[in-house]
Amino acid sequence: MHFKLRAATKEDCKEISRMILELAVYEKMSDQVKISHEELERDGFCQNPFFECLVAEVHEEDKAKEGFTMVGYALYFYTYSTWKGRSVYLEDLYVMPEFRGKGIGKGLLGKVAEMGKKEQCVRLQLSVLEWNTPSRDFYAAKGALDLTDNEGWHFIRFDGQNLDNLANEAPKD
Amino acid sequence: MHFKLRAATKEDCKEISRMILELAVYEKMSDQVKISHEELERDGFCQNPFFECLVAEVHEEDKAKEGFTMVGYALYFYTYSTWKGRSVYLEDLYVMPEFRGKGIGKGLLGKVAEMGKKEQCVRLQLSVLEWNTPSRDFYAAKGALDLTDNEGWHFIRFDGQNLDNLANEAPKD
Repeated sequence: MHFKLRAATKEDCKEISRMILELAVYEKMSDQVKISHEELERDGFCQNPFFECLVAEVHEEDKAKEGFTMVGYALYFYTYSTWKGRSVYLEDLYVMPEFRGKGIGKGLLGKVAEMGKKEQCVRLQLSVLEWNTPSRDFYAAKGALDLTDNEGWHFIRFDGQNLDNLANEAPKD
Repeated sequence: MHFKLRAATKEDCKEISRMILELAVYEKMSDQVKISHEELERDGFCQNPFFECLVAEVHEEDKAKEGFTMVGYALYFYTYSTWKGRSVYLEDLYVMPEFRGKGIGKGLLGKVAEMGKKEQCVRLQLSVLEWNTPSRDFYAAKGALDLTDNEGWHFIRFDGQNLDNLANEAPKD
């Protein structure tokens, strides 16, 4: 099956939003999705965008049973390591179930790595759920290192009232 | 003890570089530090900087026994959640050992949260080593959620030849 990868445009945000929800359903966390396509439009297509996104499309004759021709996406942004320098972070990599095993996921991942290399990034990072063995195996087979298992890195988050409380503790100038 | 927090300038990169190494020594990973102050200058003070940084300074009369008046820093950047939107990521938070317990770390963390709130971020995230109980307790006391323990998120990394291999697998246009 032929597929095409290209940079997302503002007009793609409704479709990307649909796939974000599909991915969250797969991750069993769909109740956590609070984002709208308007926010994606605002945050990804402004002066200093918060993210970049690639989308995967198939021909009309190969469309999904629900009628979609946009069947996957990779959303990423640039981060920084104070040990190694420029890094690229893959927030989401998704291919609709009926289009898996056709090289689309590998293609999207490769493109993100290529974009990162162009920006002189020395790392590509991402996070994955412990129970998500298919994804963990996919990445491990490509040489990824699990930093949580190997070095003991844990993810920590502040949000809601706890984030407000931190901000309120900032010294006044 | 009085201290001042301010946005780092290009001229601070040598001092920041010195503290990056001190933090890595504390984390028992100093052999991993490959960055130079020239790279920090290039990547943090360009058109679309890869990071922002705050530094903490004390008065000359309170200087460190090694003679430094710059005694801490917080290096951060903006990321994106496809579930919640804009986020700020705290890559490094460091205060020199002899200046701990004086509110400098809390002040730096608060300022980063404040900067994030100004940019409409709904999350502040970071990562911490499993054995680093003082840091984990510091964050937990302020309401942080450990996403690795609670939801099973693992950090994954590609670098070196594995990253090159991924990029080489990108479909050619």
